[in-house]
Amino acid sequence: MEPKKKLINSADTCVDEALCGLVRASGGLCLLKGHRAVLRSDLDHLRGKVALLSGGGSGHEPAHGGYVGAGMLSAAVAGGVFASPPPASILAAILSLHSAGASGVLLIVKNYTGDRLNFGLAAEQARNHRVAVDMLIVAEDCAFEQPSKAGRRGLCGTVFIHKLAGALAEEGCSLDQIVSKMTEVLKGIGTLGVSLSPCSVPGCLPSFELPPGEMELGLGIHGEPGVKRSKVATADEVVKMMIDHMTNPDSQSHLPVQSGDRFVVCVNNLGALSCLEMAVITRAAIVSLESRGVIVARVMSGSFMTSLEMAGVSLTLMKVDQETLRLFDAKTSACAWPNISSVSVSGRSYITDSPAMSTRPQEDTHSEGPLSPVMCKVLEKVCSTLLEKQEELNALDRAAGDGDCGNTHAQAAKAFQEWLRHHVVPGCPGQLLSVLAGLVQEKMGGSSGALYSLFLTAAAGHVTERRSNAAAWATAMHAGAQAMRRYGGADPGDRTMLDALCPAVDELMKLTSATPGGEMTVLQNAVQKAVTGAESTRDLTARAGRASYIAAERVTMPDPGAVAVAAIFKAVLQSLEEQTSA
Amino acid sequence: MEPKKKLINSADTCVDEALCGLVRASGGLCLLKGHRAVLRSDLDHLRGKVALLSGGGSGHEPAHGGYVGAGMLSAAVAGGVFASPPPASILAAILSLHSAGASGVLLIVKNYTGDRLNFGLAAEQARNHRVAVDMLIVAEDCAFEQPSKAGRRGLCGTVFIHKLAGALAEEGCSLDQIVSKMTEVLKGIGTLGVSLSPCSVPGCLPSFELPPGEMELGLGIHGEPGVKRSKVATADEVVKMMIDHMTNPDSQSHLPVQSGDRFVVCVNNLGALSCLEMAVITRAAIVSLESRGVIVARVMSGSFMTSLEMAGVSLTLMKVDQETLRLFDAKTSACAWPNISSVSVSGRSYITDSPAMSTRPQEDTHSEGPLSPVMCKVLEKVCSTLLEKQEELNALDRAAGDGDCGNTHAQAAKAFQEWLRHHVVPGCPGQLLSVLAGLVQEKMGGSSGALYSLFLTAAAGHVTERRSNAAAWATAMHAGAQAMRRYGGADPGDRTMLDALCPAVDELMKLTSATPGGEMTVLQNAVQKAVTGAESTRDLTARAGRASYIAAERVTMPDPGAVAVAAIFKAVLQSLEEQTSA
Repeated sequence: MEPKKKLINSADTCVDEALCGLVRASGGLCLLKGHRAVLRSDLDHLRGKVALLSGGGSGHEPAHGGYVGAGMLSAAVAGGVFASPPPASILAAILSLHSAGASGVLLIVKNYTGDRLNFGLAAEQARNHRVAVDMLIVAEDCAFEQPSKAGRRGLCGTVFIHKLAGALAEEGCSLDQIVSKMTEVLKGIGTLGVSLSPCSVPGCLPSFELPPGEMELGLGIHGEPGVKRSKVATADEVVKMMIDHMTNPDSQSHLPVQSGDRFVVCVNNLGALSCLEMAVITRAAIVSLESRGVIVARVMSGSFMTSLEMAGVSLTLMKVDQETLRLFDAKTSACAWPNISSVSVSGRSYITDSPAMSTRPQEDTHSEGPLSPVMCKVLEKVCSTLLEKQEELNALDRAAGDGDCGNTHAQAAKAFQEWLRHHVVPGCPGQLLSVLAGLVQEKMGGSSGALYSLFLTAAAGHVTERRSNAAAWATAMHAGAQAMRRYGGADPGDRTMLDALCPAVDELMKLTSATPGGEMTVLQNAVQKAVTGAESTRDLTARAGRASYIAAERVTMPDPGAVAVAAIFKAVLQSLEEQTSA
Repeated sequence: MEPKKKLINSADTCVDEALCGLVRASGGLCLLKGHRAVLRSDLDHLRGKVALLSGGGSGHEPAHGGYVGAGMLSAAVAGGVFASPPPASILAAILSLHSAGASGVLLIVKNYTGDRLNFGLAAEQARNHRVAVDMLIVAEDCAFEQPSKAGRRGLCGTVFIHKLAGALAEEGCSLDQIVSKMTEVLKGIGTLGVSLSPCSVPGCLPSFELPPGEMELGLGIHGEPGVKRSKVATADEVVKMMIDHMTNPDSQSHLPVQSGDRFVVCVNNLGALSCLEMAVITRAAIVSLESRGVIVARVMSGSFMTSLEMAGVSLTLMKVDQETLRLFDAKTSACAWPNISSVSVSGRSYITDSPAMSTRPQEDTHSEGPLSPVMCKVLEKVCSTLLEKQEELNALDRAAGDGDCGNTHAQAAKAFQEWLRHHVVPGCPGQLLSVLAGLVQEKMGGSSGALYSLFLTAAAGHVTERRSNAAAWATAMHAGAQAMRRYGGADPGDRTMLDALCPAVDELMKLTSATPGGEMTVLQNAVQKAVTGAESTRDLTARAGRASYIAAERVTMPDPGAVAVAAIFKAVLQSLEEQTSA
């Protein structure tokens, strides 16, 4: 077994380089020379205010440096990956904040022995330098029913404390006021994690193994063991299991949750869960909490306190009142704090109706007109032609595609026939084309369905009951071909249906310059162009559509899409000729 | 091989549930009933302005719904995972924006055939409803030297267009103005991705396989093949390779980059890369670009256009001038847009010096005083005692720990002796304690080093040259013990050194109430309390420290830490008695 592949330069340099990456990308941050400490670059804003310092091992990014900024932390000190930072760096950061004029420094520390000792030592040293220092220990893990003497672990709830204490400090509260308020808030915070995979410290093997199909509940952010393993369940079940566990009154480390309570929820990606999964879990958390009568005030969902590339998620709940919510909503410039709306999640209406304007042609409003019988006959002829050609088109398609071109066109033809059995053909040609566009989009499927639908939709706007002469039809066909080219991304010469369609439409455009009486001749010529164009695709290399994946020398038959277009043109002509001669 | 384990409810429901999760968590969003479409909930703000609509397959979260908000998109339409959304939903969203009073609707579409056709079809249908619609195709992939007829793929650069077009729309620009400005901007955008792993559509096997230790350059956000595979290199090498490839003038899809150009950079997590790796790559990207003379104006780093849980990263570069930078910096309420500082990355000083105040005791300023000889002798006695006890302490530690307790204490003793050889003992006791605190922190190591250092540091502030009577020493020892308890998290009774220390210090505190002449008696009693306390740990169950992991019945010897404390107390007493009698 090898260490997991990672995009770093080396295990030795990754922490310093990551801090450098964070600070360089964020205009509001700077590094303290000689230390792994991130400071606000506008330290002068701290004068007379309480400064906040947090930190801990690396590997939890964006914690803690990402939370440095106005309204959150004043500084963050990092240790190696999953290792507590040295007291000398913590002290150096404290003294920097002190000499910037801060009235006091609050250390926000996650409850791990190493962090407690190292931050504690720096605090005592700072006191000997006459700095007013206090420390807040965050210990909000809900995993263990009977926590050991070391107490509950500090997890993602720490980020809430950064935020709320940061807002208080920004407002000018004293060290004592902040500590007292946060001590109260901490009683209402609980976190629980679940993971599908371990994580591995750079250069090392994974911290533990999880058998395929299993997940672990309640594990720590350094891969410390959790409370139980089980088969991976559905997102809804996992979330229910988590909240049940967190709120179980039999557990010494449970979070009291009562119906009617208001909570802020953090759905925290432990590292490698996809954003899709995160959003599914976010929904599950909201729904599950609401089903318990909880009012969900705000939700933040993303990567806030990670464990390297662990594929897992933690839920943090924080009980809030109006005052804590105000602090939560306060502005911050910290780069890792998300853009959160200050609207209550629960109780908000979040589904809106479509506007009254219909998105389907209003079939009921169609009425027949003088053109209806002609168009009906043409359409019937097109359908019967496509059905006759089904096998021929399939055969052509087998040479370069998946052999279903005839079937696809036959599906459209059958859909038209079915529609004709139950509807009158509207007198307005544009309405008919819109109906056909809807039918091919729905029944024909695939790229051809979309392309024909585009053609018909773009054409529909150009022919109306009052504007239905040959010139209008030509303009409509031209608009359709243009839309096909524009959205389909192919051009004539690419061995597609455009090789039949475009020459025919170009010919039809002669109808727009008045040549009364010669319409049928132009149409005959257009059909001829379509046939020739289709035939010419024998010599073309496919550059668009599925046939473009086949080597050119293997294709010697004409393109079935172009052949179908020519056949449709021919059918239209034949029907019109039959109707004229009748 | 099984499909990858995922935290979802089912492959069928995950897209709808993820959209619901996004919208419920974000106060500014709502869902369009019956469609996978996310709209701004404050649609009335669109009156008279151009509305922006984007979208595409799901699996790219937070794209595209996360970019809906004031100053970015007005709506986003989602398809299934990696599948284009149906035209009917796109049309429904367009019509919603239109009926909210938007003066026009711009569709921002990534260059994939399915998206082009479906968005195109909806656009044509909307035109038939007399909506002013235009479409912008984003095609900024730099992977292929000779792109196919389908053109370059649309990737993460789309997010930049959402942002800039959103800012223009917010300012009231017309549809034509926005299209024309964005068409210009698009020429200066390029993206390239690299991945260490494939991703898998829910319910399906991974889209491809990458052998261990290999990476793939230039692959698409749906797992489409890239341009080459190679061994995973260092982050710096990978970034250099990416930028070289993107800017290679021999490639038809290269991005022209010249020395002196200003660029905004997006470092985009394709899904499962750790935030630590992301920060390392961010640094590498800045450094690599600057080494080419590029001015890096802004950097955004995070998950913006993902490919489910693909462990990879893409770089997007966008050439900017003052005007585009202004649009980039404009405010938006979109929940997935990060908190970015509007300070130039290049040219900024980002390292700050520590304040002049020293973080180490100023050893050079020490001067001897009347107490120096006494303290020196006491310290020498403590050292020799700890060295004598080394093996005894190790033996005790082997019963419940890793057997190095004696070695650890011996290291401290040797460090003290070494220091004594080269320094005078300061006349101020507090200064001596601070020096010793620094030595144990640095040389003793581990939790014991931190705990002794805490004790000495907290004690140091209470004894000075002028305040060095027995009462001051007692107060100092008490403060030290309190700090050890507070930060170490253990209490007397937990089978730690506190079981010797605390009873002794309690006894010493009698010195604070004036009993002149009885000091030595109190000290003798304190030593006796320490010895008894250490002995009492035989019957205690470890609840803190390493011994707490051992079953209680296996530990029958006293705690070595407590024994060491008692030995130190005894050594101090002996030395003082010797000096008094001498």
